[in-house]
Amino acid sequence: MTNQDEHFMKMALAEAQAAMDEDEVPVGAVVVLNDKIIARGHNMTEMLHDVTAHAEMIAITAASSALGAKYLKGCTLYVTLEPCVMCAGAIAHSQIERLVYGADDPKKGYTLLNAPVFPTKMKVEKGLLQEECARLLVNFFQEKR
Amino acid sequence: MTNQDEHFMKMALAEAQAAMDEDEVPVGAVVVLNDKIIARGHNMTEMLHDVTAHAEMIAITAASSALGAKYLKGCTLYVTLEPCVMCAGAIAHSQIERLVYGADDPKKGYTLLNAPVFPTKMKVEKGLLQEECARLLVNFFQEKR
Repeated sequence: MTNQDEHFMKMALAEAQAAMDEDEVPVGAVVVLNDKIIARGHNMTEMLHDVTAHAEMIAITAASSALGAKYLKGCTLYVTLEPCVMCAGAIAHSQIERLVYGADDPKKGYTLLNAPVFPTKMKVEKGLLQEECARLLVNFFQEKR
Repeated sequence: MTNQDEHFMKMALAEAQAAMDEDEVPVGAVVVLNDKIIARGHNMTEMLHDVTAHAEMIAITAASSALGAKYLKGCTLYVTLEPCVMCAGAIAHSQIERLVYGADDPKKGYTLLNAPVFPTKMKVEKGLLQEECARLLVNFFQEKR
């Protein structure tokens, strides 16, 4: 992973912070094409009363809207937390080229399925800024107690 | 399954037909609570340029909107085709009580994962009006050739 990857993950972290500020579980995502952010998203499940309003779903829909195209070929999705099964399914549908995520999600992450959700040619990298990504979540849930 | 189940699947089939009429892959869904339809949805991926715009996702979001609540407790989702991984993940998040689907999807259905996507207490029934559900899809793809 590169400095540029770190830069984009920091932008995803800024989205997660925006979720935190709205009292949402702090997860953020950005979609990048040709070294430019074309879409951003953060978790909005509480505000929208909608379990589908995860950061990745919002970012994917926004990216498709920005491109006017269903498929996000050549795009990289940066997300602060390991995607859940729903989001992993959406990522697979989107034909995103590369997924970079920060913290693991040992309770709801797609890797729990232990099944091939993504196309084999899709690249997946994890652990980028994972401490910062996880810290936001830990802080959020500690405040809730 | 009951006559009422058949009635609601026919409503899901009407949604699938609406998708067909819009030149979308014909899949339809309805969400039922206390014997009443509270939300409907049909595949709109082409029109919206959005891979997340599956019938189930639209119906779940609409049902949450109708209830003003994130969780669809006590609800049944009727859908003409076996949900994909993304939709299965969304169904699991929604805490829907019961899923009834028509045709199997041997290419993209969540059962391909052979992994537990749903909470154990969720009821899943399949095969209701499966021939009608599948016929729409077969007709659609035959016309495309």
